[in-house]
Amino acid sequence: MKKLLQVHFAFPGPFGAEMAEQLQGLAASINEEPGMIWKIWTENAAAQEAGGIYLFEDEASAEAYLTMHTARLQQLGVTQVHGKIFDVNAELTQINHGSIGE
Amino acid sequence: MKKLLQVHFAFPGPFGAEMAEQLQGLAASINEEPGMIWKIWTENAAAQEAGGIYLFEDEASAEAYLTMHTARLQQLGVTQVHGKIFDVNAELTQINHGSIGE
Repeated sequence: MKKLLQVHFAFPGPFGAEMAEQLQGLAASINEEPGMIWKIWTENAAAQEAGGIYLFEDEASAEAYLTMHTARLQQLGVTQVHGKIFDVNAELTQINHGSIGE
Repeated sequence: MKKLLQVHFAFPGPFGAEMAEQLQGLAASINEEPGMIWKIWTENAAAQEAGGIYLFEDEASAEAYLTMHTARLQQLGVTQVHGKIFDVNAELTQINHGSIGE
């Protein structure tokens, strides 16, 4: 069953276009992660936070990614990574036009 | 500029098909909220949590919805609503196949 992963953490930047330029390689690598279906990149320059909303093929791939991503962020100096994994209620999501790649 | 809203909170259920049946009317009403583009419904029966990922047309509509939704949940007995509003990095999101309704 597909799983949604939401992640956020304190982040000093860069944001916006500069973030996109610097992290294109990282984004490309994320497409190669097992079970990754899509990611929406989130950022808040005012709050100095960033993160992502991901859809994975199953719980194992979502958990493996969160473990790897948390370790990677910690190596970059991020001290607290907030990550949560959820099921998607497909029927209600369809009513509200959410796309989960069906 | 479009804004992503992520919300989660402790929730005793129902989950899954029963949740979908009971909350169809609520989902339909969410389509009428100003600025609401889509919602992905999230739930975790094991963790007894639920929430949603939303896209709104702008910050004002995302903030107004979060204020209203928090009050509605509190009336239902939810004591702590975790809500965060983010920008979306469209360029990186496009690389990772995320749909933000463009």
